[in-house]
Amino acid sequence: MNPEPTVALARFVTAADARGLPARVRHEAKRALLNWLGCAIGAARHETVEHAIAAFAPFAGPPQATVLGRRERFDILHVALLNGTASHTFDFDDTHLKTIIHPTGPVASALLALAEHAPVGGGDFIHAFVLGTEVECRIGNAVYPSHYDVGWHITGTAGVFGAAAAAGRLLGLSERQLVWALGIAATQASGLREMFGSMCKPLHVGLAARNGLAAALLARQDFTSSAEAIEGRRGFANVLATERDFSRITEGLGETWELDANSYKPFACGVVVHPAIDGCLQLRAEHRLAPPAIEAIELRVHPLVLELTGKKAPRTGLEGKFSVYHSCAVAIADGAAGQPQYSDARVADPVVVALRERVVAEVDPTLSEDAAHVRIRLKEGRALDCRVAHALGSHERPMSDRDLEAKFRNLTAAALDASAIDAIVAGCWSLETSGDSGALARLTVPRRDTEEET
Amino acid sequence: MNPEPTVALARFVTAADARGLPARVRHEAKRALLNWLGCAIGAARHETVEHAIAAFAPFAGPPQATVLGRRERFDILHVALLNGTASHTFDFDDTHLKTIIHPTGPVASALLALAEHAPVGGGDFIHAFVLGTEVECRIGNAVYPSHYDVGWHITGTAGVFGAAAAAGRLLGLSERQLVWALGIAATQASGLREMFGSMCKPLHVGLAARNGLAAALLARQDFTSSAEAIEGRRGFANVLATERDFSRITEGLGETWELDANSYKPFACGVVVHPAIDGCLQLRAEHRLAPPAIEAIELRVHPLVLELTGKKAPRTGLEGKFSVYHSCAVAIADGAAGQPQYSDARVADPVVVALRERVVAEVDPTLSEDAAHVRIRLKEGRALDCRVAHALGSHERPMSDRDLEAKFRNLTAAALDASAIDAIVAGCWSLETSGDSGALARLTVPRRDTEEET
Repeated sequence: MNPEPTVALARFVTAADARGLPARVRHEAKRALLNWLGCAIGAARHETVEHAIAAFAPFAGPPQATVLGRRERFDILHVALLNGTASHTFDFDDTHLKTIIHPTGPVASALLALAEHAPVGGGDFIHAFVLGTEVECRIGNAVYPSHYDVGWHITGTAGVFGAAAAAGRLLGLSERQLVWALGIAATQASGLREMFGSMCKPLHVGLAARNGLAAALLARQDFTSSAEAIEGRRGFANVLATERDFSRITEGLGETWELDANSYKPFACGVVVHPAIDGCLQLRAEHRLAPPAIEAIELRVHPLVLELTGKKAPRTGLEGKFSVYHSCAVAIADGAAGQPQYSDARVADPVVVALRERVVAEVDPTLSEDAAHVRIRLKEGRALDCRVAHALGSHERPMSDRDLEAKFRNLTAAALDASAIDAIVAGCWSLETSGDSGALARLTVPRRDTEEET
Repeated sequence: MNPEPTVALARFVTAADARGLPARVRHEAKRALLNWLGCAIGAARHETVEHAIAAFAPFAGPPQATVLGRRERFDILHVALLNGTASHTFDFDDTHLKTIIHPTGPVASALLALAEHAPVGGGDFIHAFVLGTEVECRIGNAVYPSHYDVGWHITGTAGVFGAAAAAGRLLGLSERQLVWALGIAATQASGLREMFGSMCKPLHVGLAARNGLAAALLARQDFTSSAEAIEGRRGFANVLATERDFSRITEGLGETWELDANSYKPFACGVVVHPAIDGCLQLRAEHRLAPPAIEAIELRVHPLVLELTGKKAPRTGLEGKFSVYHSCAVAIADGAAGQPQYSDARVADPVVVALRERVVAEVDPTLSEDAAHVRIRLKEGRALDCRVAHALGSHERPMSDRDLEAKFRNLTAAALDASAIDAIVAGCWSLETSGDSGALARLTVPRRDTEEET
């Protein structure tokens, strides 16, 4: 008989052989890490990160690890929290499309901080990272969508397991200790969707990283938990979800890889809005559209779009990310939907506001999550149509390695000089040959005082 | 119109005037603190605490606060976690009878650590403590019992709000900041009942203290959250409970005090077992019973007793606390149910094991939670009956101040010398006149190296 999910995952993580990891998955891990580093470095000076550092710095421990894109060094637990928070601040990180989990933030933030403190080669680092995201996404698969529908921010709640598994692997936990680590993670699983639109949303990722890392550190000292934390009667899956399928955790373990379902965002907002933005950008490029010519933008979208991004009149850049109306308006106005399009100033810009008021969105339950229909009615009378079957960045239309490099360079250009950026990109692609993967973190420290002192 | 619960609580906590606090409530706060200190000091050398210190010490910050009953000093966040964990390790702390919340652990652990770092007089300390427990218990009232029935360890999930509120009060947060603190607390609410019987159960209390304190520290830096964290559609009460009554939060705020419903345990195990233990002890004393004379111990108990403490054959002292069978056996064998009765050795003792196998428990849904019927059948043929209407330690039969002092002295006798114990007891009763409430923590540090070095 097969072991129960908690033990099955612990056995898988502790016994896995790196030689079983396909080259394609190892490469996807590096893509994910590069994308994550860019998001974290890009947001390193955001007020969300500044506030968190101001709150925690007086209480932090020894300078063991690097806050990405900054000069501060703190203990690994605080660094895991801060880097996780930074990496989700722009809502621009990766997405596991089956569950809407942002898989890299919780896992990599725990792992890179730990790797700075306890040096580890790039091969083992990548392996631990893949195992962590595998655990995280499989647990997500088992409870999605009911868990998300109840109101849980699944990146926080599933992420803590991934961070615990990855850190536990690097720490060399026994199977029994890894069971405990998963249990200590389970009992910290938290993060409410009510927080979307506030600084707490990215904080969930940081907390998942910090709490998962702490779970592994506790388990290493034989701090005990339930042995059935996931499937037990009062365990994670029963308490935090209304439906669950444990076969999604155990079937094909070690044979299929959830990183194959990972995707990256070309646009700096929630992935559910991407098909609509994509359609607007395609029509704008094809017809050289400008705001004054437009009478109305009519969208047909998946139901989640209005549930998650239905803000008609956002007041801040952050709220703009939760507005399909702003996103489409700015796509038409600027021909882009990167981080600059979600500033407070762009959200308040009169041209954008006027355009946003002409966006109408209608739910179409027959559409998949990566599809949308965009119809733009021109004042001259014509109607232009774009049917997006699969948005850019989706599994069917993935961003290329070159796309990801370009995104990384855009995100980090203001924070780092060109040589540092080149070094990080090269360091990511050659990570497997590195003898000290934590060195990657130190490459992100700004060199010139003038660049980062405020 | 009345404000919604989250804003109502923030307004209450920030605007409360200490002169509105009845003397009876201030006195109950001191009783709660004395009881909490005893539990934490008594467990300071328990392996649960040792493991947690071993896990976290390499990553802890400056020596800002005291681990109760030990010589280590760490940053206030780690100390809040460690003291909260220690105080619930014996399962001997206080109980808010309406919700089974253990109210003091999360709140006092955050508050005393903070008070060591930012000195505060005893009057303000007590006031903040009362406000914190009020917030915690009212949120518990609003979601109990459905929240608990789902599988949440309510001391962890409600406790984080209490710690945030109390710390936020001491930090002088504005109403808006306290709303955020409650939100940051809400989105960290966690702790599964699946963990009962493992080291994670007391850890929940430490996490609630640490996370609530962190919430207040973040909010002080204007780290934002939802403004409707408790009542919002995807907020705490809707996501973590199936039924909720927000009037339990807002009605009578500032007029009634939940500490009036607080109680203390005379026995070192879950409060649901106390009526049965009480009955056994009464029959033992009255009839001078000894194990060889006993044919069977027949219990009629509230349904929660078997749900929570139905372990027939516990293997460790900790599991013994979750066994009504062991608890009654040891009560008859030893005439006591203090911490020594829940050692691994007592659980394995042949006389206790033989007696435990003669305990039969039957659920009686007509009994209240603090009632039990105990019938002891003697080998000679007689049957002895004891009907406990209200267990010792219940609201109707509270422990006296003297009882609490005696319990404190028993818990701390092995850790501290008599003069230190006297000083702590005196320091608690006179806390309101202290200019530096954090000094109380430093009184608990063992003076002689031989006592605490291992």
